Amino acid sequence: MMQLLPIYVDDIIRRALTEDITGMDVTTDFLLSPDDVSEAYLVAKAEGVLCGMEIAKRVFELVGEGVVFEAKHSDGDRIQKGDILAEMKGNTRTLLKGERTALNLLQHLSGIATETARCVALTEGTNASIVDTRKTLPGIRALQKYAVRCGGGKNHRFNLSDGAMLKDNHIDACGGITAAITQLRQHIGHMVRIEVEVRDLDELREALAAHADIIMLDNMDCPTMKEAVAITKGAACLEASGGITHDTIREVAQTGVDIISLGALTHSVKAFDISMKWRKK
Amino acid sequence: MMQLLPIYVDDIIRRALTEDITGMDVTTDFLLSPDDVSEAYLVAKAEGVLCGMEIAKRVFELVGEGVVFEAKHSDGDRIQKGDILAEMKGNTRTLLKGERTALNLLQHLSGIATETARCVALTEGTNASIVDTRKTLPGIRALQKYAVRCGGGKNHRFNLSDGAMLKDNHIDACGGITAAITQLRQHIGHMVRIEVEVRDLDELREALAAHADIIMLDNMDCPTMKEAVAITKGAACLEASGGITHDTIREVAQTGVDIISLGALTHSVKAFDISMKWRKK
Amino acid sequence: MMQLLPIYVDDIIRRALTEDITGMDVTTDFLLSPDDVSEAYLVAKAEGVLCGMEIAKRVFELVGEGVVFEAKHSDGDRIQKGDILAEMKGNTRTLLKGERTALNLLQHLSGIATETARCVALTEGTNASIVDTRKTLPGIRALQKYAVRCGGGKNHRFNLSDGAMLKDNHIDACGGITAAITQLRQHIGHMVRIEVEVRDLDELREALAAHADIIMLDNMDCPTMKEAVAITKGAACLEASGGITHDTIREVAQTGVDIISLGALTHSVKAFDISMKWRKK
Amino acid sequence: MMQLLPIYVDDIIRRALTEDITGMDVTTDFLLSPDDVSEAYLVAKAEGVLCGMEIAKRVFELVGEGVVFEAKHSDGDRIQKGDILAEMKGNTRTLLKGERTALNLLQHLSGIATETARCVALTEGTNASIVDTRKTLPGIRALQKYAVRCGGGKNHRFNLSDGAMLKDNHIDACGGITAAITQLRQHIGHMVRIEVEVRDLDELREALAAHADIIMLDNMDCPTMKEAVAITKGAACLEASGGITHDTIREVAQTGVDIISLGALTHSVKAFDISMKWRKK
Amino acid sequence: MMQLLPIYVDDIIRRALTEDITGMDVTTDFLLSPDDVSEAYLVAKAEGVLCGMEIAKRVFELVGEGVVFEAKHSDGDRIQKGDILAEMKGNTRTLLKGERTALNLLQHLSGIATETARCVALTEGTNASIVDTRKTLPGIRALQKYAVRCGGGKNHRFNLSDGAMLKDNHIDACGGITAAITQLRQHIGHMVRIEVEVRDLDELREALAAHADIIMLDNMDCPTMKEAVAITKGAACLEASGGITHDTIREVAQTGVDIISLGALTHSVKAFDISMKWRKK
Amino acid sequence: MMQLLPIYVDDIIRRALTEDITGMDVTTDFLLSPDDVSEAYLVAKAEGVLCGMEIAKRVFELVGEGVVFEAKHSDGDRIQKGDILAEMKGNTRTLLKGERTALNLLQHLSGIATETARCVALTEGTNASIVDTRKTLPGIRALQKYAVRCGGGKNHRFNLSDGAMLKDNHIDACGGITAAITQLRQHIGHMVRIEVEVRDLDELREALAAHADIIMLDNMDCPTMKEAVAITKGAACLEASGGITHDTIREVAQTGVDIISLGALTHSVKAFDISMKWRKK
Repeated sequence: MMQLLPIYVDDIIRRALTEDITGMDVTTDFLLSPDDVSEAYLVAKAEGVLCGMEIAKRVFELVGEGVVFEAKHSDGDRIQKGDILAEMKGNTRTLLKGERTALNLLQHLSGIATETARCVALTEGTNASIVDTRKTLPGIRALQKYAVRCGGGKNHRFNLSDGAMLKDNHIDACGGITAAITQLRQHIGHMVRIEVEVRDLDELREALAAHADIIMLDNMDCPTMKEAVAITKGAACLEASGGITHDTIREVAQTGVDIISLGALTHSVKAFDISMKWRKK
Repeated sequence: MMQLLPIYVDDIIRRALTEDITGMDVTTDFLLSPDDVSEAYLVAKAEGVLCGMEIAKRVFELVGEGVVFEAKHSDGDRIQKGDILAEMKGNTRTLLKGERTALNLLQHLSGIATETARCVALTEGTNASIVDTRKTLPGIRALQKYAVRCGGGKNHRFNLSDGAMLKDNHIDACGGITAAITQLRQHIGHMVRIEVEVRDLDELREALAAHADIIMLDNMDCPTMKEAVAITKGAACLEASGGITHDTIREVAQTGVDIISLGALTHSVKAFDISMKWRKK
Repeated sequence: MMQLLPIYVDDIIRRALTEDITGMDVTTDFLLSPDDVSEAYLVAKAEGVLCGMEIAKRVFELVGEGVVFEAKHSDGDRIQKGDILAEMKGNTRTLLKGERTALNLLQHLSGIATETARCVALTEGTNASIVDTRKTLPGIRALQKYAVRCGGGKNHRFNLSDGAMLKDNHIDACGGITAAITQLRQHIGHMVRIEVEVRDLDELREALAAHADIIMLDNMDCPTMKEAVAITKGAACLEASGGITHDTIREVAQTGVDIISLGALTHSVKAFDISMKWRKK
Repeated sequence: MMQLLPIYVDDIIRRALTEDITGMDVTTDFLLSPDDVSEAYLVAKAEGVLCGMEIAKRVFELVGEGVVFEAKHSDGDRIQKGDILAEMKGNTRTLLKGERTALNLLQHLSGIATETARCVALTEGTNASIVDTRKTLPGIRALQKYAVRCGGGKNHRFNLSDGAMLKDNHIDACGGITAAITQLRQHIGHMVRIEVEVRDLDELREALAAHADIIMLDNMDCPTMKEAVAITKGAACLEASGGITHDTIREVAQTGVDIISLGALTHSVKAFDISMKWRKK
Repeated sequence: MMQLLPIYVDDIIRRALTEDITGMDVTTDFLLSPDDVSEAYLVAKAEGVLCGMEIAKRVFELVGEGVVFEAKHSDGDRIQKGDILAEMKGNTRTLLKGERTALNLLQHLSGIATETARCVALTEGTNASIVDTRKTLPGIRALQKYAVRCGGGKNHRFNLSDGAMLKDNHIDACGGITAAITQLRQHIGHMVRIEVEVRDLDELREALAAHADIIMLDNMDCPTMKEAVAITKGAACLEASGGITHDTIREVAQTGVDIISLGALTHSVKAFDISMKWRKK
Repeated sequence: MMQLLPIYVDDIIRRALTEDITGMDVTTDFLLSPDDVSEAYLVAKAEGVLCGMEIAKRVFELVGEGVVFEAKHSDGDRIQKGDILAEMKGNTRTLLKGERTALNLLQHLSGIATETARCVALTEGTNASIVDTRKTLPGIRALQKYAVRCGGGKNHRFNLSDGAMLKDNHIDACGGITAAITQLRQHIGHMVRIEVEVRDLDELREALAAHADIIMLDNMDCPTMKEAVAITKGAACLEASGGITHDTIREVAQTGVDIISLGALTHSVKAFDISMKWRKK
């Protein structure tokens, strides 16, 4: 499993905790003794794919001392409704203060992983990989992209600096696909792939002739995409994008495209339901 | 309409832009002249409530100079599919670099406002207000809560420091609702309201006797909530919470509760579809 | 005792240390061996209430390794002149580098706690609570408000976002107290209390009729406040504010008001005298 | 007059505003129209020395647009009770949201400048300069030291890195004042002055013999300090420190010392009373 | 010419200025009137390639107001000794305070651009591009890589996240080049290129068979690299790396490799000599 | 040996790591098991002076857990080509991810220390100290100045706030050296030394008469500097500056100046060659 840099994760948790506690917790600090200890656990309320376990653990460490967090599952694990995800034992104040922040992160990331896994399952047996986009939420892109990988998906370019994608404006400014790619190749680093957005098969042919690395088939119907695959014959990586739903994704994958990119994986996340329960003392 | 602090908004945009551009945009900077100018506009692809207009405008200012952004609608406006939300004119590089970040923010916030407005509409004519929760995404809580207000909802407590909410653990630690509220009143500031979570009508009665300001009816069915309203007779503010959907929300509202809180408003946001289109030169 | 979030405290200490050491300590680093060890202790030079013990300990941890800090008293403890507050043992360089920053924090916070405790003592036996205001120093509001609680005081609203306070401008803009409160109630969250500033008994009566939660008696004399208490009959929380000194505070408290707010608790702090002494080797 | 770096000032204001507004101002944003405009002014409630005028102006700029701030006095100006310090005109929301933060800064800094000026006046006609110490509040040291200068004082070393000060521990570790200074001179940069703390006249003589640049007379009585001045004959700069009050400061200055350092200038600041008043519309 | 994000540039300048001015400039603020104005200009003391012009301009804006900075040359321009690079006019304090920070940035970046241009010139007429590495200085990687581009070079991968490079450890852990590439292709995003480091021609052949996108010829002599080019026949991009100097670079380029990467471009920068001169008043 | 503040060092490492890893390392995380362990060591590829050992160690701690780093040499040690500087054992992923960042810092700082030591050696037996300047790279000034000390050099003023240096503009604005120094002494703190830049012996005499603490001989030839030393007779500290190279430095030192300042120590650093090698498993 991949690993995020701890300083990156800490930075996000710190912002979240700073939003949730301005100095003190007026309920907990006034009612619970600093010595009070409890046991609690995290439990799945649905079936899906887990993501964020190390992050949840880290939340309690940053809230305060004295909590032992024992993960029962790891990021990327498929979990069933009722599965116990982690056992926690220790300072009750810390557990109460960290609960919401830990759950918010865990539910959001597991929601992404679960939805990604669903799309992966829907395209099983085809050649298509499920990938994310730059349609992410502010400040947590690497976290969201990590969740996509935990769900079995792959990552599209991280940002405008590490991958080139030619859209209409770029192409028009240069006077056509061929001219644009030629100009770009003169400047761009050798580690950067070039993707071109095309709207029809003529543009596809031009992009192929100009040796685009990846070609995005923008909002095409399945028969056209099938034809695109036939024309391309593996000479470029083909990406289907735009308007793809659970209902259509398998048909899209069966056209033979290499990549299906889905903005919804990160821009329209449904939180995965996880609860924190307390063991009776 | 309410106004967010510019330094707060800038901080979020800065994080988003830093994720999206590491120094330069390898497509745009290599293909477009710094002097190239264009016209573009933002258009709604669905019906809903707008939120994030000032923020979108600010994105382009932080990306670079030379873009005039003219808003055609304001935050909180109900918009129709096809409505032009803003006209932009200026430096093409700036427009291209800011597009994704502006749309990501606008779509997320308008998604929240639109869903909130839908819940408000579903409960129209009742006494119930629609409110958010602390189930927000890391680093953007104030932004999300602002969007809830734009959609016609209200805000629950911002965090653990500005409102007191007694849950099982707090109550058990003090030996009961009455004891817990009494202890809390001795310490808590006079500007802080106290809410108690109750699971049945006996607990409701105890909370009322202890003069809780707000009482949360946790996962109760509608007949029980109706009874709760009858018992309470306005002596406390009643909040319905837990498992409320579009299908049930009106019935919940009709029980007479004052508040319906919905975690999904902020934890399971569906992006509202907005596109940036370019005018032909 | 209440607990501040460690990441909040660390942030303040980090800023303080960064001001005090730009890379190295030119006296200590050039004269003392990195292996040199010493023993030192913190001693009170006056009578008062302690605040900042955990923070002082944390300063030495952030300066470097190798210091054992043993607190002899806790935040909120009443201490006498000559009391030893903490024993420290370890790396001399770390002790020397952390000394000033630890003392600066400890003396400021204990100064607030001590002054708060004095005001609490002066109003003993009355109904009045001593509370702080938003008249705090930049960047350390939560820390200062924590110190007020350690001194036995309570906290007023934290900021403009978590409590509503209607002043002249707000009232005038709406056409009167009643109109202002009515308008506010339509928008404001159910967890937010509304306070109204009144200058005479007529305004008090209007605020009461409009069901203000808290009413601030702005710069009123004691007989008028007594009358205000009689009129109010517990229907709202009454706050005395403006020009209250050690000489007048008991008389103010005896009028029967619920709250006495004092800007000086945080805007005019007299440092509490604490020294760091070194044990002879 | 000296000038602080704008990015330094902005950073402090940003932290202060972030503490005071979490997204919105629930009173102002719900009651005042964004188009409402007002006129207000800042007025002194006491006699003293002004400090923080540019900073106050900058607060309103960072809160929002649309306020014209016209300063009537500058930092360092002596002002009388009733003097109008600044006229403000513009967006009422911005004025209301910035008021507290602007006043908090202005009152704290003017408090420092006023107290410094008082000490300067008390020592008028003598050779002694009034200087600050490292006993400052966390995060605002440069701001506080700027205020000391506005009051006519001078600045001691900024921190542990830009000036050397030998205390007991340093001296003991090296086996005496002479050895310590000799060792330090071998390492320290040529732009750094060396100060030695002495407790009696023997130590003074040793420090003089070792060519200390500055010698701090630690908690000495006036006759001894007079003798120290006579012994020193200008061969080193002499600093009086410890337990100096308004009652004793002139006598201390008259001993002929060059420098009187006062921790209280920055660690025990009494806010200078300034009000923001609104002109009737 | 490419453009860096202003918020990225500002962040670096802010850190540099914060290092150089702690509140005030004790020479300038005490000697020059805030109203004093001057004229100055930046002049090249050597021949080379300019980089950092917009950044230098921005330094003066962040120091204070009142300076008009007119650039006479742009980033990427070849300049001669004695060329005037910019004319500045305005507030003398601002000019003096910003001088060092502006020059430090300008000289470092122009040093990189100049050395890059020299290597580009030395390989003129060959197929080889000059590229940078990850051997950059902390906190300014994007700035340094921008300077390489201004000098006519190209950029290697930005970091460990946007390009894959297989070294010994990666290969050994997987049991060989073929296995490693195969495993990587299963997981890696479609926008990421894969580079393999090889030490001899056998490894080259294996990397080619495994369809590596780029192959780094690690510290090979020129005859071997020539052979490598012959074997590869354009099937992969070949990168020469390790121990290449001004004396050998042309010979290396003439082997036919596509890429020559040079750590020294960014890890061993010789500042380009630029002075700020003052026009006599 | 001197010690940098850990929070300062961490901040620089954090920025460096954030540049080098955006969430994950796409080669290492996809190919190496999280449980894989290795042994590696750092070895010098040249002779010089080491600097950055604690920082390199800290890099691996911030990347992740599970690496034991055993330093074999300390900062300031002279090392020979082939010397093993540190042994590392532990998590292979952590070792691979931290390698580049650790080396970048170590090589840069050791490069500074080595060059400083060379200049110190070239002036051995003379009175002259080697010192740095403000010509540093953005964001790492204290780190660079620390490296100068590790190489046996001393530090010039840290910034514009802690030392005064009068240049032409300052002098002209006041009407001459004498007037400028007089004016400055009235305002400046007693811990701040005053340096004056002079271009000829007349200016030197004026600076001496005005009791400048340090006098910088700006770009003077050696005979003139010798004369300057004779004139000064120890009445001020003399600093040679401008155009000094390895070829001329000894002659400059032999003129009898106290200080030789060299911008190149920090603005034109040649990385010191250090490799990380892996022990075969």
